[in-house]
Amino acid sequence: MSNKIRAGIVGYGNLGRGVELALKRNDDFTLKAIFTRRDPSLMNTESNMVHIDNILDYKNDIDVMILCGGSANDLPEQGPAIAAHFNTVDSFDNHSEIPNYFNTIDKIAKQSNKVSLFSIGWDPGLFSLNRLMAQAIIPDGKTYTFWGKGISQGHSEAIRRIDGVKDAVQYTIPLEEAMKEVRAGNNPDLKAEERHKRICYVVPYDLKDKDRIEREIKSMSGYFLGYDTTVYFITEEELIANHSNMAHGGFVIHSGKTDGVHNHVIEYSLTLDNNPQFTSSVLVAFARAAYRLALDNKKGAFSIFDIPLAYLSPKPREELRKTIL
Amino acid sequence: MSNKIRAGIVGYGNLGRGVELALKRNDDFTLKAIFTRRDPSLMNTESNMVHIDNILDYKNDIDVMILCGGSANDLPEQGPAIAAHFNTVDSFDNHSEIPNYFNTIDKIAKQSNKVSLFSIGWDPGLFSLNRLMAQAIIPDGKTYTFWGKGISQGHSEAIRRIDGVKDAVQYTIPLEEAMKEVRAGNNPDLKAEERHKRICYVVPYDLKDKDRIEREIKSMSGYFLGYDTTVYFITEEELIANHSNMAHGGFVIHSGKTDGVHNHVIEYSLTLDNNPQFTSSVLVAFARAAYRLALDNKKGAFSIFDIPLAYLSPKPREELRKTIL
Repeated sequence: MSNKIRAGIVGYGNLGRGVELALKRNDDFTLKAIFTRRDPSLMNTESNMVHIDNILDYKNDIDVMILCGGSANDLPEQGPAIAAHFNTVDSFDNHSEIPNYFNTIDKIAKQSNKVSLFSIGWDPGLFSLNRLMAQAIIPDGKTYTFWGKGISQGHSEAIRRIDGVKDAVQYTIPLEEAMKEVRAGNNPDLKAEERHKRICYVVPYDLKDKDRIEREIKSMSGYFLGYDTTVYFITEEELIANHSNMAHGGFVIHSGKTDGVHNHVIEYSLTLDNNPQFTSSVLVAFARAAYRLALDNKKGAFSIFDIPLAYLSPKPREELRKTIL
Repeated sequence: MSNKIRAGIVGYGNLGRGVELALKRNDDFTLKAIFTRRDPSLMNTESNMVHIDNILDYKNDIDVMILCGGSANDLPEQGPAIAAHFNTVDSFDNHSEIPNYFNTIDKIAKQSNKVSLFSIGWDPGLFSLNRLMAQAIIPDGKTYTFWGKGISQGHSEAIRRIDGVKDAVQYTIPLEEAMKEVRAGNNPDLKAEERHKRICYVVPYDLKDKDRIEREIKSMSGYFLGYDTTVYFITEEELIANHSNMAHGGFVIHSGKTDGVHNHVIEYSLTLDNNPQFTSSVLVAFARAAYRLALDNKKGAFSIFDIPLAYLSPKPREELRKTIL
């Protein structure tokens, strides 16, 4: 007999593979099945692969489903559908759509008596929690979020949509000078484009288009316009060889005063060798919390703001008080 | 009519004065009274000063008592006594005594139907929370806590107890080299004395004792023995002029791997111009949480691990999801 938390994974891309890996390092979990839209027999893994159409066969065998689909197309459909039958945790990261997503999932999870943790990852997620705590502690202050150095999928895709571009990768890089100002407690007014620069590696179909492509990139409003943007044209081989790693990271820095004079700087930072693997590890810790909230008979949708964080740890509270507090 | 949270302060030292200040910057609070063991009529403040013997007169007028006494002598007595009648928040920081303190307060607060948040500050407190989260997310890793640069009251007092010492101040300073190793993901084994050095400023009664005093400091087990310790002898005037500031800070760095190869570094750091004022600000944010937990009909003792952090913010959850998540 096992008292392990029985987990399922929905989606087997980078995030799903990261969760499969993370579950092996958390021995209070057991992975029951990975659900995929592809042909399960063709997947190269020792885990139990199941077609997503058969997910309800596992209704009584899985304590928490870890949703590893994308926020653009997968989660808006899968989140509500699966929350109707299972406890879930997901990394929904479309910031402007969070209120709608919450409302949908919350209603369904309350009807199904399930727990759904949404927008769990590092931003939204750990960064959000640090923004909230810092602002509550030092209200007379300002919070700055810096992202990078890391590849932005959204910006890379925006470049790929330009006529004549075969492939492209875009790095978001925080500006050292801006971070220095913030850390010094100077509380500068800084828009996103004053906190970051952008470096693009572009594979053109034809090098004769490169001036036009560079102009189109730099004038793209909402993505590059206003930013310090550098464009390098490289070969496809170079792109694959040098720009396939998934390192990322960032900083949340809050700076403010307690008495108009004394300044305080609160900083949270992540330096990640592999962005999806780290997000997967966050998802697994919060899957533990989802399971425990369900044991407490909670129901509905919960963000990282709504959860006692003791629930993330496999250790009993008594041990946490004794060894970590 | 006011719907403000009615706060009381117990103790009017650096921490109590910091809370008085912080409450002014959080306009959902109103300060009803400051309780002191000294003669209230002699206190230099516009706040309502009340002798601590009359604290029960305020039983129906105060939603949460913010306990600002010391952990050595005040809190072990005041914590239980006041939790019997009021919701409380305190910064009990005697790590080895936390389990006992919790057991005492938890029993009393459950009997009185009150909420007591204990060990709220930055360590224990914010640092503890970051240790817990990081370890839950990346279990295959190591956590390092660095303190400083800042004055350690415990170490300063240890020096003052040496024969021939008139006054003294001790700075705990994190070792840059150790931090660099940790941030690089090398996961070195480092004892506290391999992470910090100690610098002491000592005012001797008689300069002829200085060699003996220095020897006694450096050989003090549990405090200085094994540490890189530097001792400077200075005058009382110099001590007051140059070593009265209350800056402090520190770092919690967790580093570990997701797949045996890819490393991730999670870092939380504080740079504080005024240690007690910052701790006071943490106490006030958690006083808000104590009040809300009480509205939820919770009772007993809670650590920072047990509280949904949305409760720290004056903003409604809907706004938090929309603007901070």
